Amino acid sequence: MEKNNTYKKGPDAMRYNGERRTSLSEDNRQKMSKRVSYTIEGPIFIIKLNDPRHLNSLTFDDFVYIAMLLEKANSDDSIFITVLQSSAKFFSSGGKFEAVLESKGKEDDIGSLNNLIGMISSPNVFVANAFRTHEKLLVCCLNGPAVGLSACIVMLCDLVYARDDSVYLLFPFSNLGFVAEVGSSVTLPMKLGINKANEHLLFSKPLTFADLQGKLINKNYQMEDTDEFNKQVVRDLQAQLVAADAPLRNMKAMKRQITEGTGYRSSLLRAQGLETMTTLPFWHEGEPFRRFEQMRSKQRKHKL
Amino acid sequence: MEKNNTYKKGPDAMRYNGERRTSLSEDNRQKMSKRVSYTIEGPIFIIKLNDPRHLNSLTFDDFVYIAMLLEKANSDDSIFITVLQSSAKFFSSGGKFEAVLESKGKEDDIGSLNNLIGMISSPNVFVANAFRTHEKLLVCCLNGPAVGLSACIVMLCDLVYARDDSVYLLFPFSNLGFVAEVGSSVTLPMKLGINKANEHLLFSKPLTFADLQGKLINKNYQMEDTDEFNKQVVRDLQAQLVAADAPLRNMKAMKRQITEGTGYRSSLLRAQGLETMTTLPFWHEGEPFRRFEQMRSKQRKHKL
Amino acid sequence: MEKNNTYKKGPDAMRYNGERRTSLSEDNRQKMSKRVSYTIEGPIFIIKLNDPRHLNSLTFDDFVYIAMLLEKANSDDSIFITVLQSSAKFFSSGGKFEAVLESKGKEDDIGSLNNLIGMISSPNVFVANAFRTHEKLLVCCLNGPAVGLSACIVMLCDLVYARDDSVYLLFPFSNLGFVAEVGSSVTLPMKLGINKANEHLLFSKPLTFADLQGKLINKNYQMEDTDEFNKQVVRDLQAQLVAADAPLRNMKAMKRQITEGTGYRSSLLRAQGLETMTTLPFWHEGEPFRRFEQMRSKQRKHKL
Amino acid sequence: MEKNNTYKKGPDAMRYNGERRTSLSEDNRQKMSKRVSYTIEGPIFIIKLNDPRHLNSLTFDDFVYIAMLLEKANSDDSIFITVLQSSAKFFSSGGKFEAVLESKGKEDDIGSLNNLIGMISSPNVFVANAFRTHEKLLVCCLNGPAVGLSACIVMLCDLVYARDDSVYLLFPFSNLGFVAEVGSSVTLPMKLGINKANEHLLFSKPLTFADLQGKLINKNYQMEDTDEFNKQVVRDLQAQLVAADAPLRNMKAMKRQITEGTGYRSSLLRAQGLETMTTLPFWHEGEPFRRFEQMRSKQRKHKL
Amino acid sequence: MEKNNTYKKGPDAMRYNGERRTSLSEDNRQKMSKRVSYTIEGPIFIIKLNDPRHLNSLTFDDFVYIAMLLEKANSDDSIFITVLQSSAKFFSSGGKFEAVLESKGKEDDIGSLNNLIGMISSPNVFVANAFRTHEKLLVCCLNGPAVGLSACIVMLCDLVYARDDSVYLLFPFSNLGFVAEVGSSVTLPMKLGINKANEHLLFSKPLTFADLQGKLINKNYQMEDTDEFNKQVVRDLQAQLVAADAPLRNMKAMKRQITEGTGYRSSLLRAQGLETMTTLPFWHEGEPFRRFEQMRSKQRKHKL
Amino acid sequence: MEKNNTYKKGPDAMRYNGERRTSLSEDNRQKMSKRVSYTIEGPIFIIKLNDPRHLNSLTFDDFVYIAMLLEKANSDDSIFITVLQSSAKFFSSGGKFEAVLESKGKEDDIGSLNNLIGMISSPNVFVANAFRTHEKLLVCCLNGPAVGLSACIVMLCDLVYARDDSVYLLFPFSNLGFVAEVGSSVTLPMKLGINKANEHLLFSKPLTFADLQGKLINKNYQMEDTDEFNKQVVRDLQAQLVAADAPLRNMKAMKRQITEGTGYRSSLLRAQGLETMTTLPFWHEGEPFRRFEQMRSKQRKHKL
Repeated sequence: MEKNNTYKKGPDAMRYNGERRTSLSEDNRQKMSKRVSYTIEGPIFIIKLNDPRHLNSLTFDDFVYIAMLLEKANSDDSIFITVLQSSAKFFSSGGKFEAVLESKGKEDDIGSLNNLIGMISSPNVFVANAFRTHEKLLVCCLNGPAVGLSACIVMLCDLVYARDDSVYLLFPFSNLGFVAEVGSSVTLPMKLGINKANEHLLFSKPLTFADLQGKLINKNYQMEDTDEFNKQVVRDLQAQLVAADAPLRNMKAMKRQITEGTGYRSSLLRAQGLETMTTLPFWHEGEPFRRFEQMRSKQRKHKL
Repeated sequence: MEKNNTYKKGPDAMRYNGERRTSLSEDNRQKMSKRVSYTIEGPIFIIKLNDPRHLNSLTFDDFVYIAMLLEKANSDDSIFITVLQSSAKFFSSGGKFEAVLESKGKEDDIGSLNNLIGMISSPNVFVANAFRTHEKLLVCCLNGPAVGLSACIVMLCDLVYARDDSVYLLFPFSNLGFVAEVGSSVTLPMKLGINKANEHLLFSKPLTFADLQGKLINKNYQMEDTDEFNKQVVRDLQAQLVAADAPLRNMKAMKRQITEGTGYRSSLLRAQGLETMTTLPFWHEGEPFRRFEQMRSKQRKHKL
Repeated sequence: MEKNNTYKKGPDAMRYNGERRTSLSEDNRQKMSKRVSYTIEGPIFIIKLNDPRHLNSLTFDDFVYIAMLLEKANSDDSIFITVLQSSAKFFSSGGKFEAVLESKGKEDDIGSLNNLIGMISSPNVFVANAFRTHEKLLVCCLNGPAVGLSACIVMLCDLVYARDDSVYLLFPFSNLGFVAEVGSSVTLPMKLGINKANEHLLFSKPLTFADLQGKLINKNYQMEDTDEFNKQVVRDLQAQLVAADAPLRNMKAMKRQITEGTGYRSSLLRAQGLETMTTLPFWHEGEPFRRFEQMRSKQRKHKL
Repeated sequence: MEKNNTYKKGPDAMRYNGERRTSLSEDNRQKMSKRVSYTIEGPIFIIKLNDPRHLNSLTFDDFVYIAMLLEKANSDDSIFITVLQSSAKFFSSGGKFEAVLESKGKEDDIGSLNNLIGMISSPNVFVANAFRTHEKLLVCCLNGPAVGLSACIVMLCDLVYARDDSVYLLFPFSNLGFVAEVGSSVTLPMKLGINKANEHLLFSKPLTFADLQGKLINKNYQMEDTDEFNKQVVRDLQAQLVAADAPLRNMKAMKRQITEGTGYRSSLLRAQGLETMTTLPFWHEGEPFRRFEQMRSKQRKHKL
Repeated sequence: MEKNNTYKKGPDAMRYNGERRTSLSEDNRQKMSKRVSYTIEGPIFIIKLNDPRHLNSLTFDDFVYIAMLLEKANSDDSIFITVLQSSAKFFSSGGKFEAVLESKGKEDDIGSLNNLIGMISSPNVFVANAFRTHEKLLVCCLNGPAVGLSACIVMLCDLVYARDDSVYLLFPFSNLGFVAEVGSSVTLPMKLGINKANEHLLFSKPLTFADLQGKLINKNYQMEDTDEFNKQVVRDLQAQLVAADAPLRNMKAMKRQITEGTGYRSSLLRAQGLETMTTLPFWHEGEPFRRFEQMRSKQRKHKL
Repeated sequence: MEKNNTYKKGPDAMRYNGERRTSLSEDNRQKMSKRVSYTIEGPIFIIKLNDPRHLNSLTFDDFVYIAMLLEKANSDDSIFITVLQSSAKFFSSGGKFEAVLESKGKEDDIGSLNNLIGMISSPNVFVANAFRTHEKLLVCCLNGPAVGLSACIVMLCDLVYARDDSVYLLFPFSNLGFVAEVGSSVTLPMKLGINKANEHLLFSKPLTFADLQGKLINKNYQMEDTDEFNKQVVRDLQAQLVAADAPLRNMKAMKRQITEGTGYRSSLLRAQGLETMTTLPFWHEGEPFRRFEQMRSKQRKHKL
């Protein structure tokens, strides 16, 4: 039997490949729970997006918070599976325009550049690494479309279940004036094929259910209601855990074998530096900010 | 024209990447032919599982014997294609419970540990390497389900033809208390995709014909009778050889280009050490033995 | 805004990974335009095969010329997309028999060997590298079957659109007495899967539309007329460029991320030396020349 | 002849592997020139540390500024060689305590974590990448000891010349409570050997001239005066350029061949993500801040 | 502060990259302590060879026992450094002839082959992996010559200190009829250079102190007495630990950065399968046994 | 005992990694023996440069001939060691100016470009590959200086013995207007270190005996007479073979382990395409031809 670890801040709670990662105290978690929350159901740690009124769009801090929740799940030995869920009919429309626009520095000085480096590194190094080094099975309940950084984290999951065939993923990076981020330059070609990746990344073209089935998406639940879908996936996972009757360390060891066998983990590591430094100059030059501003003011819209 | 080499024991018959591998004298082969036999039909070397009463389950020695037959086929310059066949409706239900349970040492001493290292290394280093370095086209006639180590060697074949759509592969390693072995941590993600590999390895969930078609399985013969199917595949291969009219060294050179081009051979080499050392502690701790015992005594069964 | 570069010969026009590659003056281009021509339509550079009477078969010089046109497109900053088109119902039947047979040296001396090395290196190192390092989006309008080296360059494109489902690719290398060339030992296993690559390369077996769809081929236009098809693809690409509204450097940066993320570019580099040195001895020994001679004299034919 | 490019801000001045990197306007440069300045002497771009009173210690912004100067030198086609110089008898004592301590967030919230990610990513991703992708020959005039991040950038130079045998490098990371940064986990083992790297990184033990000679250090000038030494190196480099009589693109192409041939550039890319995420939790937990505080208050000192 | 873990058998005590490895109960340890013993001095775990009358030669079980002690040290969080020591003037003359000769199977059957696979895998997979994945600093007190497998484990240490300049390493594998084992095909070229490795491995030629200094050997203690030397190294290490004042997880994280940065760990993993399968056929054919027999009967001797 | 293979032309005499390479009939060998000859002394195959009057400078055909002799030695099972020797006091001053200048095409057409591709590929793909895949121990008797392509093949040898300390290697590629060729972009950094490689390749600066000792050069014979030196090395090698008493397949297997363990063979393979395509545009643009012309007419001279 695996023993229950309690979650605590500090060196013991942070790991890289078995070392520490960063975490946050419970108090701060409370302050951040507006758009992202978590619950634990036995061996399953559920991270939920719950701001359907804004299509579950997220701030940069929300993505960092998700990374910290991943770490919390990772260091809890009672957890076998980490689940990402959302609410209503849209998984997540990606990063909030406002959050992006706030990050734009006022002046062209080194301080402002440093802020930008931090803003770009947070998702591309810190968040991407939390997914890359997550040792539990990572399952996404894809209830609907996911866009931008949110689509990136769907691509990073180990298993994806679709509510129905209306789901799609959209990577509008070229359209917004920057390039592939958060592992998508690796996950798309490795999971969907190079030619597919070319078309959908370079032309900001949605990946439909048909494009994803059997490659990213393991099963189509063909359900109407998202709450029911979310519950059913968790029930099924619990049943699978009972049926498999495998200790946690088996599952962790096997996940590690798979991700190392294919060079997947190693490619994602290299992408952390590569994507950060490839996208940074576009942000520094300012075009993405101009386009996000156009979107906020409705002068431009996503090619959904 | 390729010249016929005769098969002989010793240094000349063993190769690693052009060097020697291990072989066995004809006399010993006779003693081992209960469950595995071979025949040569012109340029085709056929290895056949023929114990349908026990669903063609195999002992560890049988797997080693298959590896030695691979080597025999490899060093015979009259052979162009090596075929794996089975009998009746089950390709192979995997390792025999009895064989596994015999391997369990009585005492917890170094001698017993050494036995265990040998038992784990035999399939994961020796057998896996015979498949990895086989230079002839390796074809599997998949007449029915394959389970465990037997499913692993199906995954390692260059071409797989299915008798009909009732075939499936099952990797019940998590269910049996250990982890991916005999190259499956590489073959599943590289041939079927990472998310597919995650689901089917971690949850011991069968891979159906639909999962394998166009990826692992090149053709569905849609035949009822296994003997007819086996014969038809061999006839078709002979016809293809005549049509291709290519010398042996072309086929060997091209197979080498393909397996090196993708990093496939190199990944399989790394997996030999990685899978051995990842699975060993689970066997040493004893859980797999307990679960095999439960299966023998019908307290546990495969999730077929 | 991207500035327009004019095309000029010499060091400034040649690049390796940002350095120079080889080019040719306009005058010479005129002499070579019998089978291959180019036009520029705004941001799109179109390379066209226009010898339908000979099924658009090509000489070695034609392939070198295509490589030089790729470089011309690459170094022109007004170009976003490079398109390969053909005419009538056959994309290209591959290398011309006559061209191959001319390359056969008369005597068995070093000078003749040096000629052979040059003849093999031209497509496998020089042409393959032009595709490998092309920084613009490379689109193939696959109007019909492509065979041999022509099939190889289709496989090297970033996006492939099919006129209808009658298209196929054939790699008759084993049948012609040599082995995989021009990146095909990498592109087939990486884009179509290892077992697929095994069957179609080793047995010179055509890859049908069904084999390619969703992997190599991004879309089926289901059109009858090749000219209409060619025009429609270009119109669609122009519309996509307008819709994407992405500057050239975004597209180049993203293409680079994708090809580096998967190790695709690096594998293609290694293949340049490997394919050249694996195929050379077969040509040196002479069997391919004998078989091309048989084909010319109709004693042997392609397995179409 | 290479044509002179002028230096300009924005997308054209930033490159990753031929793409853009980040730069800064001239005005801002003026404000930052207290500790770091640059001059151009014909084909040589000289970056100079000139704060000998504080042993040429640097703020994080200074390191970012050096990275921007590298980019300025990189995009100026009249520049063949970039030289790092310092003043008086100490090359640089590393990061300023004050600068480090300022970076410590006050509260344990996500904003504070984001600041920390930015502070760690600036040197480990942004600065390290400027060195990794610098295309001109990068020469260090090592006039005396270099410590910490300053020692890291010495290790990243292509050629190092020593003023005399009193120079040394010190990597006191373990002593200060964190781990290897800015490429040192790659440069030490690859340039000095694994066992050497182990001893000097894990035990914060100085690398003496004898340890570095013939591996990192190409020549010992055995001079007393730093100004004379700096001038002499530049004179020698100019003489070498005249003697070599090689165009810039030769030198760039050859540097690229060398750094790719050994896997050096690729290892440094992987280190960007790895070092950032390995060191971050130590900073987040706070021990490095405590130790820097002890050093500032003289309770702890470097093991020089 | 790191908390003390107690050492216990079973799944919790075995790890691969953070997972479990194999261990043994205390009782069994007692039985094996004739030639190898261990003591713990504060943060230092000392493994000692103490059979000077037989030049500290070792059985295969002794090597496995050393691997288990490494694991014991690895999983004990109070341990920072693991030290290998020996006694008198010879570090170790390698594997005992008798032990090798016992391993020779009587008959040429699969059972005998399985024994051989186990005997070869024990050092090349199991022991080599214990060194490869050891997370504490691994220090060798090289008091005198080391030969064969014992020389291999010296090469695998992170730091080596020499008693005086009479030490040497000898790899007599070619002389004994087999090939490089236990990582030596990687450690020699990576730590000493390729041309050095060629000469000393292919010609079974001793590596002298001069060959090793500054590459493998970090310091020459120039002492006469081995006991004094052993004590002095431990005193110095303890002093260094106090001076470095670094927590255990710093040292572990930094060791991991170094071994991953250079590809060292990954090369050693690949060597596990490669060395095992390259050396196995030589043993299977029998020449090494014949030569060991000649050595035992004094008909052949080491080229010391 | 190894059986003697006779040398024969055609498919059986050509191998890549166990496949065929190219060879030449005995008759043609006679015609080419002016500057390069070979003799066989028992298990040693000696290739000798014997044109001391022209400092043993070589044509491109001579290098190809050396590659063919390597293949002859490789496929002869009675050969254990291949030795490169020269005559008088200069090992080889590199490629003959005349040979280079002849290769310059008259016109700027595709035929001329094809000739150039062949001329560049011959040494960089064909000759480099013969060294890379040579399976016997490759020993260089370095009697004096080696320059250019000749220095490259010295760097590619497994063991190098120096006649005395007057030997040096010079790579004047930057000085001659092109870049690193024939593996030197890999062999210099991997055998001598990155910073050393930078200085000597970019500045065309000689590598002295002191630079090479212990890294490339295994022993200094300190002899005056080249003939005596050549004989003594062969005598010593024969004595070592007798002492080692190892069968050929041991030595081949061990050499393979070493070159694969370090990634050396794989890096050299990648360099074949990379060096060819990096140097080609410089030759195509014409600067190297101008500089060779200056050297022939004494307007320019080597920086010896």
